[in-house]
Amino acid sequence: MTKIKNIKERELISLITGILEKNQTHTSEILNKYIGPGKDDCAVIDIDSSKLLVASTDMLHSTTDFPPGMTPQQMGWMSVAVNLSDIAAMGASPIGIMMALGLPPDLDLDFVEALVRGMDKCAGHSGTVIIGGDIDRHDEITISGSALGLVDAEHIVLRKGAQIGDMVCVTGKLGTAGAALDALIHNRSTDRSVLDKFYQPVPRIPEGISLAQTGCLTSMMDISDGLALSLYDIAAVNNIGFHIQANNIPIHNEVRSMAYNEDELFKWSVYTGGDFELLFTIRPGCLEQVENKTTVQYTVIGEVTQKGMTIERHGNVMDMKPHGFTQF
Amino acid sequence: MTKIKNIKERELISLITGILEKNQTHTSEILNKYIGPGKDDCAVIDIDSSKLLVASTDMLHSTTDFPPGMTPQQMGWMSVAVNLSDIAAMGASPIGIMMALGLPPDLDLDFVEALVRGMDKCAGHSGTVIIGGDIDRHDEITISGSALGLVDAEHIVLRKGAQIGDMVCVTGKLGTAGAALDALIHNRSTDRSVLDKFYQPVPRIPEGISLAQTGCLTSMMDISDGLALSLYDIAAVNNIGFHIQANNIPIHNEVRSMAYNEDELFKWSVYTGGDFELLFTIRPGCLEQVENKTTVQYTVIGEVTQKGMTIERHGNVMDMKPHGFTQF
Repeated sequence: MTKIKNIKERELISLITGILEKNQTHTSEILNKYIGPGKDDCAVIDIDSSKLLVASTDMLHSTTDFPPGMTPQQMGWMSVAVNLSDIAAMGASPIGIMMALGLPPDLDLDFVEALVRGMDKCAGHSGTVIIGGDIDRHDEITISGSALGLVDAEHIVLRKGAQIGDMVCVTGKLGTAGAALDALIHNRSTDRSVLDKFYQPVPRIPEGISLAQTGCLTSMMDISDGLALSLYDIAAVNNIGFHIQANNIPIHNEVRSMAYNEDELFKWSVYTGGDFELLFTIRPGCLEQVENKTTVQYTVIGEVTQKGMTIERHGNVMDMKPHGFTQF
Repeated sequence: MTKIKNIKERELISLITGILEKNQTHTSEILNKYIGPGKDDCAVIDIDSSKLLVASTDMLHSTTDFPPGMTPQQMGWMSVAVNLSDIAAMGASPIGIMMALGLPPDLDLDFVEALVRGMDKCAGHSGTVIIGGDIDRHDEITISGSALGLVDAEHIVLRKGAQIGDMVCVTGKLGTAGAALDALIHNRSTDRSVLDKFYQPVPRIPEGISLAQTGCLTSMMDISDGLALSLYDIAAVNNIGFHIQANNIPIHNEVRSMAYNEDELFKWSVYTGGDFELLFTIRPGCLEQVENKTTVQYTVIGEVTQKGMTIERHGNVMDMKPHGFTQF
């Protein structure tokens, strides 16, 4: 029999959403009201209000998601941040987050306190609060968050919407998580600020809201699985391609100084997950309007094409591969 | 240092909610709008709509929550049911459920399909759908659900509100999970229908909505941790007591026939978790009104007193103990 490890993560998601869609034909009335599972950073629900409800869930656990050296407070922060990042990707304002905690019985209470404090700090940093949760005895520390947000129907930005000729942009800097991970795995010396950025990513909530409200964005998602994989996701849903200028990808100087060579920088910024920045597309000719309407720091890194996934480095055009962070 | 296993589950919840409340003083404006964490079956959020948003999360995993003999489809069903039960306890209508799945790489795809089908069936049975989720590689099957619901502000029923003289009621029958668990643990013969009820509990969504809409309820919660522990929770939040008539507790005939003696029946129906029924209190003199306004099957099992937690069996009054299902 086929096992999970024999198929790719995105195939598994398709399998699951396929089952759900097939069985949900009787609820087409409900389905019309929202973005179905596996289709976007968040589920979107029409709650018969002036705003749409967006909701997302993310499960983290020690082995995969909490690298050695991470403090309990940083684990708590990270668990909330990954969930809020999905809310940000819709252009929504968070209204609360629930945290289900699977905790080993032998865990010190001090650890739990620090964990909860980290969760609370990250929520507070984004102007929201922990509204509820669950505790469960578990061999491995497992944290499953669910974030809720609201957004005006006219301002929501989905993955679907990117069109040929749109400009491709990212917030902040890329490659930070890649640099930190390589330093941790290969025991290389690292800038403390790079590790901190990796351990305590700041959800791009105000950036997402501000960008969405310009009315100039055609699509948006977060790049938690890496730039390349995220571009592939947006390409698939819109039946388009991308041409990216590698030399335009914004990278912290501290990250640059950690790389042995340009290939490493390229791998970190294109093919490694863990940077919680926003990837978005802007209608052509709208750049000035975005500049006038928001103060968000972002960089244009390419454009939407009819097909193909290509990336240009120093004048050489290569195929971009669907590589990045996957669970299986 | 104190470890989690050295304190009770409810102490751990208090510790966590204490940290959150202390740090959230700066967000008192937000806090006023909802029921804080650890306070009810669901978080309640005022979304500036005619309705209130309720949300709940529950994490399950193999060791604790999926007894041997449970099929993957039943695991999926159960994972959704426990979450919808919390929505039911607020008198709310579900609007969607998110499921985060932690799955071992060696798991067969057939297993995943059955699991997802069970989730979908349970959601469909309650008139709702799976709107999103997450998949995560995990050594142990871990399922964390988050259910969302809407309820008119005038119809929401909280844990807080029970008053001296109110009648105490439960939906359905109790002791079914206790009987099934004892049969599984001690390898006793069991009625298949009892096991099925235990493995595939039906969330009391229509019952919760209908009861709440009578306007006669003063408090409600689900009894997933057992009747006694749930009564203790309601007593604590309302600073009241309970007097329960053990002989009035409704029990399936199949469950009765499985018990060696009355003490066993008593333990199953009062001190064992796993029955997903609703516990609620009704204003005195409102019983006729409830009878007229709803067709829900329920039983009056006692009344709210000023203090003390007592239970009467064949004329003997005993103290009810805070025993039931806890995680640690």
